[in-house]
Amino acid sequence: MRGARGLGSAPGEEVRISVLGALPEIVPGDDLPAMLAAVAADAGVQPGDVVAIAHKPVSKAEGRVVRLADVQPGDEARFLAGETGKSPELCELILGESRKILRRRRSLLVCETHHGFVCANAGIDASNTAEGTVVLLPVDPDVSARRLQHALSDVAGGRVAVVITDTHGRAFRRGLVNVAVGIAGFEAVLDHRGGRDREGRMLVATDQALGDEVAAAAGMLMGKASGRPAVLVRGLVTAPAPGTLHALVRVPEQDVFRAEVDADGVVR
Amino acid sequence: MRGARGLGSAPGEEVRISVLGALPEIVPGDDLPAMLAAVAADAGVQPGDVVAIAHKPVSKAEGRVVRLADVQPGDEARFLAGETGKSPELCELILGESRKILRRRRSLLVCETHHGFVCANAGIDASNTAEGTVVLLPVDPDVSARRLQHALSDVAGGRVAVVITDTHGRAFRRGLVNVAVGIAGFEAVLDHRGGRDREGRMLVATDQALGDEVAAAAGMLMGKASGRPAVLVRGLVTAPAPGTLHALVRVPEQDVFRAEVDADGVVR
Repeated sequence: MRGARGLGSAPGEEVRISVLGALPEIVPGDDLPAMLAAVAADAGVQPGDVVAIAHKPVSKAEGRVVRLADVQPGDEARFLAGETGKSPELCELILGESRKILRRRRSLLVCETHHGFVCANAGIDASNTAEGTVVLLPVDPDVSARRLQHALSDVAGGRVAVVITDTHGRAFRRGLVNVAVGIAGFEAVLDHRGGRDREGRMLVATDQALGDEVAAAAGMLMGKASGRPAVLVRGLVTAPAPGTLHALVRVPEQDVFRAEVDADGVVR
Repeated sequence: MRGARGLGSAPGEEVRISVLGALPEIVPGDDLPAMLAAVAADAGVQPGDVVAIAHKPVSKAEGRVVRLADVQPGDEARFLAGETGKSPELCELILGESRKILRRRRSLLVCETHHGFVCANAGIDASNTAEGTVVLLPVDPDVSARRLQHALSDVAGGRVAVVITDTHGRAFRRGLVNVAVGIAGFEAVLDHRGGRDREGRMLVATDQALGDEVAAAAGMLMGKASGRPAVLVRGLVTAPAPGTLHALVRVPEQDVFRAEVDADGVVR
């Protein structure tokens, strides 16, 4: 019998997701890769495991913490502050992190970040950080993920993949989900084209966003305020690869929801 | 030490996701709740478990399989067929399942279904079904989920929650993810507002789309063509509730990406 009792189950039959010990509060300059690797080693990390970690400790270790009092807001930020009710300093930071403000409604600012993410406030977060400070996304989360991957793979003695996550809202659906904002060590999107269904017909259009599925799975255990930033995913079959967030980010030119359309929704 | 070795871990510290045995090929009229309950009983399903199942066997059991040759396409379907290269019969079905076609580009049709889902082809699927037939989404997937929930809870002797899933593309991000299209037995969106972060500040805007995170987690194990439609999720802490897909579906009036906007993206 496969399934719930299947501790000896075949690869790809069971995935276990567990909280990866506790990390201390991270401050700029901390050697997060070494700290995470130590916690993972205690938890018995193995080759083939995937470690998911929220971006916030990564950002903090990399010094992406800004004191709002140190920010000089410009005219655009002051205008946006008046429109949204946010502080001019926060608006200045949001503008700095954004290629474009895609949507604005009252206090809501949906931004396209320089990485290509579409999310509220360009991913800038004021929770779980010292009063008067905010946390920005890592400058290059793939590079951050790769550093973690190297440290984790060293202690595991083989490939450990890494997903750095953030919680994003979505168009069309309510609620936030944990998504991948940085990837190292595996293919974040699996291309099933060329596979066949049970009737032997070719499958089309079946790119699986595995990186985001891993992030969402880890999100089930990452409480919002409970100090559980890192999660171990064991038993998932992944394709070894350098891995990159760009596999998951749709460029604006290929996105029918950022394209010019006519009244019938036809992309021009 | 918590974590990977934590078989006796505290609630919410470890989640195990496993393939729930094999179901035979489902045909219209099959008693899927009884069949799924039998497989789940063999796997040792317990109160508190969540069972995720792809919509296709659910739809098939409920007779939502249509022979394209039986469909009479109207004028709008014929027009759409000419524009997209799809068959007029398929276009007729897509129109019938849709409130609105939101976007169209070459063969791509992004639809808003009567349930409120935004997805390609109104969720109609031609893979893993007999030649010349297609599978529609269940008419009311929450009702479908509730039937499965009752059968599963009976054999478990307590509450087993259910998520019916489908794979959808997303705006802004590449690749498909498994999302919830039907819910029974738990709160699909958790409201963390009123909680506090580690510094004691109130958390805002932190609705967690747990139903979609469960679906995505299950998606890691649901191969596209491998006959693994059902997955058992054990160890997840859920809030008992009737549950509904509508917790996860944003109504168009609240969606800034379906709103009228000015050139700056400001919602009118």
